[in-house]
Amino acid sequence: MLERIRIVLIQTSHPGNIGAVARAMKNMGLEDLALVAPRCEFRCADAISRASGADTLLAGAKLFENLEDAVANCSLVVGASARSRTLPWPMQSPRQFGAALPEELAMPDNRVALVFGREDSGLTNAELQRCHAHVQIPANPDFSSLNLAAAVQVLAYECRLAWLENEPTPINKEPQDDDWDHPPASHADLERFFAHLERTLIVVGFHDPTTPRQLMARLRRLYLRARPDQLEINILRGILGAIEKKTR
Amino acid sequence: MLERIRIVLIQTSHPGNIGAVARAMKNMGLEDLALVAPRCEFRCADAISRASGADTLLAGAKLFENLEDAVANCSLVVGASARSRTLPWPMQSPRQFGAALPEELAMPDNRVALVFGREDSGLTNAELQRCHAHVQIPANPDFSSLNLAAAVQVLAYECRLAWLENEPTPINKEPQDDDWDHPPASHADLERFFAHLERTLIVVGFHDPTTPRQLMARLRRLYLRARPDQLEINILRGILGAIEKKTR
Repeated sequence: MLERIRIVLIQTSHPGNIGAVARAMKNMGLEDLALVAPRCEFRCADAISRASGADTLLAGAKLFENLEDAVANCSLVVGASARSRTLPWPMQSPRQFGAALPEELAMPDNRVALVFGREDSGLTNAELQRCHAHVQIPANPDFSSLNLAAAVQVLAYECRLAWLENEPTPINKEPQDDDWDHPPASHADLERFFAHLERTLIVVGFHDPTTPRQLMARLRRLYLRARPDQLEINILRGILGAIEKKTR
Repeated sequence: MLERIRIVLIQTSHPGNIGAVARAMKNMGLEDLALVAPRCEFRCADAISRASGADTLLAGAKLFENLEDAVANCSLVVGASARSRTLPWPMQSPRQFGAALPEELAMPDNRVALVFGREDSGLTNAELQRCHAHVQIPANPDFSSLNLAAAVQVLAYECRLAWLENEPTPINKEPQDDDWDHPPASHADLERFFAHLERTLIVVGFHDPTTPRQLMARLRRLYLRARPDQLEINILRGILGAIEKKTR
């Protein structure tokens, strides 16, 4: 289970933080580190020193140009967010996030991404709106910004606890929901659907990209909340195709 | 409750770690930091930088010559230990430690100390034997040594959760769905939407009611799963209206 949890760091500035994240991950048994456009040279002495023996994770870190590519093959994308947003999004506590993992990862092809933003400014609204849910570490409201590696440590700890609680002894298992008829849509499938939806809404005159208000954000939130499966996304895209054909 | 939890660091070598501990503590609402014979000058630039605004905790840190004095007024002393010992000692998980705190601190004069050892060698046997219990963070057995501040972060997080769960004020509760921006759609609203959706799918030639297969059932399952709110249903119906108008 733990090998299918990816930690994604966006535009990290301090190599020491990346090293400390690698250490926190390896301490908790996570191994899949993805870096989106890091703003530092991260295979340096400072990072290796803070990794304190977890430098295999640094060496194996995957580099991406944008969040999109870093989470393309993930079935669940959760963003770590300290801020509350104008548009409410499904929120989880770290414990709720952990509790949902075993079921989420019961299907062997499912992958989970946990996304962390910049040290100074976190995740952008556009990045947050690519996430199925947001997870917030309950912190002192007067001093709520955790160090990046500390935030990863807390969430990786909850991942490990969830894994330990679900370890072997399958005889004692409760029946699970793993009999869903189709696998979940990947992040890339979802993004293709959203792009297609937006084009279609423009065609039918419902959406004006110059005055978007919150339309696409609200539709994203709605569909992401439902966690569409692959067949459902195919149906939705089929509907969009039929509308385009009819209005041509 | 949190103000009566003391973090005790024994013979810490790196000022950056002390700064990072101060930050982790303040993030979780802890304020009482005690240092036993630190092996560094801890009110330095490196510590202040890593404290990242929690330097009041550094300035207010209490200095002691030995563990004895640092925990003299504490009713419960728990040592963080990664090693298993030859002499078995009461062991707790971080979660068990947290769960016991509210009762422990119900009496207003009780105080709890959480004791952390040296970066390289942890706590000595003599120190461990001064503790009522040991707490062990469940870590990867092949890479089990957490950074000092990361270990403090995990245990301070469990302290905070224990406190929040026992707080009466609703602001501290787990995220709930009652802060959503619009009330949920009623059953009747949903049924009107499904009827409208079906009419539109017939108009655009995607749905043939004489051979429906499972189309409407699948779309129902998808949308019902998302529990749409009233505004979302209004948006979806607005989209259907725009499609009808465009195809007329």
